[in-house]
Amino acid sequence: MLFAVKMDVDLPADLDPEVKADTIAREKAYSQKLQRSGKWPHIWRCVGQYSNLSVFDVESNDELHDILWGLPLFPYMSIEVTPLAVHPSDINA
Amino acid sequence: MLFAVKMDVDLPADLDPEVKADTIAREKAYSQKLQRSGKWPHIWRCVGQYSNLSVFDVESNDELHDILWGLPLFPYMSIEVTPLAVHPSDINA
Amino acid sequence: MLFAVKMDVDLPADLDPEVKADTIAREKAYSQKLQRSGKWPHIWRCVGQYSNLSVFDVESNDELHDILWGLPLFPYMSIEVTPLAVHPSDINA
Amino acid sequence: MLFAVKMDVDLPADLDPEVKADTIAREKAYSQKLQRSGKWPHIWRCVGQYSNLSVFDVESNDELHDILWGLPLFPYMSIEVTPLAVHPSDINA
Amino acid sequence: MLFAVKMDVDLPADLDPEVKADTIAREKAYSQKLQRSGKWPHIWRCVGQYSNLSVFDVESNDELHDILWGLPLFPYMSIEVTPLAVHPSDINA
Amino acid sequence: MLFAVKMDVDLPADLDPEVKADTIAREKAYSQKLQRSGKWPHIWRCVGQYSNLSVFDVESNDELHDILWGLPLFPYMSIEVTPLAVHPSDINA
Amino acid sequence: MLFAVKMDVDLPADLDPEVKADTIAREKAYSQKLQRSGKWPHIWRCVGQYSNLSVFDVESNDELHDILWGLPLFPYMSIEVTPLAVHPSDINA
Amino acid sequence: MLFAVKMDVDLPADLDPEVKADTIAREKAYSQKLQRSGKWPHIWRCVGQYSNLSVFDVESNDELHDILWGLPLFPYMSIEVTPLAVHPSDINA
Amino acid sequence: MLFAVKMDVDLPADLDPEVKADTIAREKAYSQKLQRSGKWPHIWRCVGQYSNLSVFDVESNDELHDILWGLPLFPYMSIEVTPLAVHPSDINA
Amino acid sequence: MLFAVKMDVDLPADLDPEVKADTIAREKAYSQKLQRSGKWPHIWRCVGQYSNLSVFDVESNDELHDILWGLPLFPYMSIEVTPLAVHPSDINA
Repeated sequence: MLFAVKMDVDLPADLDPEVKADTIAREKAYSQKLQRSGKWPHIWRCVGQYSNLSVFDVESNDELHDILWGLPLFPYMSIEVTPLAVHPSDINA
Repeated sequence: MLFAVKMDVDLPADLDPEVKADTIAREKAYSQKLQRSGKWPHIWRCVGQYSNLSVFDVESNDELHDILWGLPLFPYMSIEVTPLAVHPSDINA
Repeated sequence: MLFAVKMDVDLPADLDPEVKADTIAREKAYSQKLQRSGKWPHIWRCVGQYSNLSVFDVESNDELHDILWGLPLFPYMSIEVTPLAVHPSDINA
Repeated sequence: MLFAVKMDVDLPADLDPEVKADTIAREKAYSQKLQRSGKWPHIWRCVGQYSNLSVFDVESNDELHDILWGLPLFPYMSIEVTPLAVHPSDINA
Repeated sequence: MLFAVKMDVDLPADLDPEVKADTIAREKAYSQKLQRSGKWPHIWRCVGQYSNLSVFDVESNDELHDILWGLPLFPYMSIEVTPLAVHPSDINA
Repeated sequence: MLFAVKMDVDLPADLDPEVKADTIAREKAYSQKLQRSGKWPHIWRCVGQYSNLSVFDVESNDELHDILWGLPLFPYMSIEVTPLAVHPSDINA
Repeated sequence: MLFAVKMDVDLPADLDPEVKADTIAREKAYSQKLQRSGKWPHIWRCVGQYSNLSVFDVESNDELHDILWGLPLFPYMSIEVTPLAVHPSDINA
Repeated sequence: MLFAVKMDVDLPADLDPEVKADTIAREKAYSQKLQRSGKWPHIWRCVGQYSNLSVFDVESNDELHDILWGLPLFPYMSIEVTPLAVHPSDINA
Repeated sequence: MLFAVKMDVDLPADLDPEVKADTIAREKAYSQKLQRSGKWPHIWRCVGQYSNLSVFDVESNDELHDILWGLPLFPYMSIEVTPLAVHPSDINA
Repeated sequence: MLFAVKMDVDLPADLDPEVKADTIAREKAYSQKLQRSGKWPHIWRCVGQYSNLSVFDVESNDELHDILWGLPLFPYMSIEVTPLAVHPSDINA
């Protein structure tokens, strides 16, 4: 089951540089582990933004929430979730 | 070069049913031809909306505009375009 | 899997009264059938609005989309979908 | 008398961790006591948000305000209140 | 129990003048009957708008919805409802 | 001459508790003095908000501005002012 | 007593050309009469818009409402009213 | 003196095809004449929109307004005007 | 050449009182010098807001920008600029 | 390939003055180097704003993102990107 997720990151200007570097490193590892598992099939950078547009492939709303809530950058993010369905024109449907 | 494109369709209530059916059929054919060519790699229905979220893979802004302008449903659509870049956490990058 | 769905109805002022009455009757029957099946456990009127706030309990995003797309009033509705998860404070969780 | 209430939580990044943990614990206890009393029949997490969608069943506007004002997380919340009425299609009405 | 209600009227430009005059006359009678009953204690015109700000005093959400739904101008109105509670600084509280 | 005024209060999380208590006490006294004078005939709490909806009865725009500017909570408020006129359906007009 | 008033005009595309010309001519006469009386001291065109920004000098909210309601273009306008007060830096104050 | 101008075109679905074609042809001629005169140095299509972003170089606000008001598509456009100044980092300044 | 300028001031709660008083005093002097020169013909307080609506009469966009950029309160302001033209109904035009 | 980019700068009030001066100096050098290379053909100040409207001429979305992400003021900016295409009325097209 697919969901589009837009994540906008807003790091406080006075965030401790070490905390910042560590959080970003953990975010990357967290994301890549989920990408490898197939749960997070797409992640794109939105040009000129500290944002990404991602697609998640999960079993349920609860699974998606747990993934997003666990993002190391979650406390600094605004997140918008759009549930996706098969499009009738999709040649792969 | 990738772009996320959100298309919201708003057909007038008094649109002639034949015109409507014909336009939707042409839209589907137009979309599927582009999907097969690789220019339109993803199309998803947004749940509960007469909308889709798509990803286009084109050579230039001009090519993308020509594709979108040529959509049979273009006169009835609101379209939002987001240029995408490679995300530093993308395992395929 | 639960989703909150807000539906705002906007009937054109010049809609044929018979078409209007028939559409509203079919909407009611369609809704009540889904309520009885357990797919549509809650429907509330928003005070002072031609709107409802509903909760759906479905297997997937695709099932929810099919239900909403099939609403007799769908062409006259604006719909907002919010995926819901279990809340950690929920005493029934 | 039912009300839908959307609560968005925004905790300051520099909130003392002990204060934070204590406030969240008190919020949970406060909510569960009201759930058990029947005043707060539904609470759902909005996927990907530090937010909940709740339904309250109260005697009056004043009772609802007192409940919300007393939430331990109230100073960190944005709250939106929607009064609900019986829907004419509700099979339980 | 008090509610603030903002009503914005938007009459279609091509509304039949007789229908228009009749609807406005019925709206006035409907409003004045409710004012006399004490259910609609305040109605003010918003300067420069085809709008009013009103205060209703009702027993329940359902009663308020029935009153608003029954307004002869309801099909042409956008309505915003704000539930009110006693303010702790109110000298009459 | 009547004006509807919506006041939303946003106290900084780190405001000194004594300053806060003192400011709120002065706000209450200031408001009640104006209520007694007839300048501030209505004040209601908006349910679930640190907000009030008030009606002022003043001689001029300048008088209203001076009253609002003098509110002890003014530096922490967002204020929206709506000039009101007599409504043609008002039974007291 | 001064008020800033922003008026945006939106004439229907299918408005009868004679009705349109007549309404615009009456609007101009109405405006100029009020300008000569001193009630409407400023009227400016907003560049690139079918809009004006005006300043009115009236005795009361009711007088302003009657003037605006009487505008021949009123049914085609969106109007925004801002009450003005003397600014403490005004050299003429 | 430079101004950025965003123009969004919204042609009614039922516009007579001849009127439409004629208006668009006149718009093109009008624009190209101004481009050749140096008054309209830049015009770009916004990708996926029936919109353009333009830059005008005029003597005054009044000249800009006259140009925009005279656009054959003006009655079908929403226009946003941003006055521009020299940027201190501009290497040509 | 006239421009309407709306300035909203938002002073940080923790601004040093001396800095604040000094900045406001310099703002007043700066404004009054420009008023006397004829560059800033109107300044009004928006009722209930820490805001003003002003009209400037300048030679160019660059002159206006330099004036606004030089405002002592500029770092604390949100500013909205509307270019004005002569209105065809203006009796002084 | 052209993109319009709107950049709004919001420097924290408590930014160290040296850091601020250094960042602005580096921003200017960075911008001017890109202007000289032809990648950044236009930069205009938006009147009354700490903002610029720019046009970039780049090979790809990725190149644009790298340029914008590298701006010394990037952490303090809100950025809006609009992909541009050739306009059919452009005399240079």
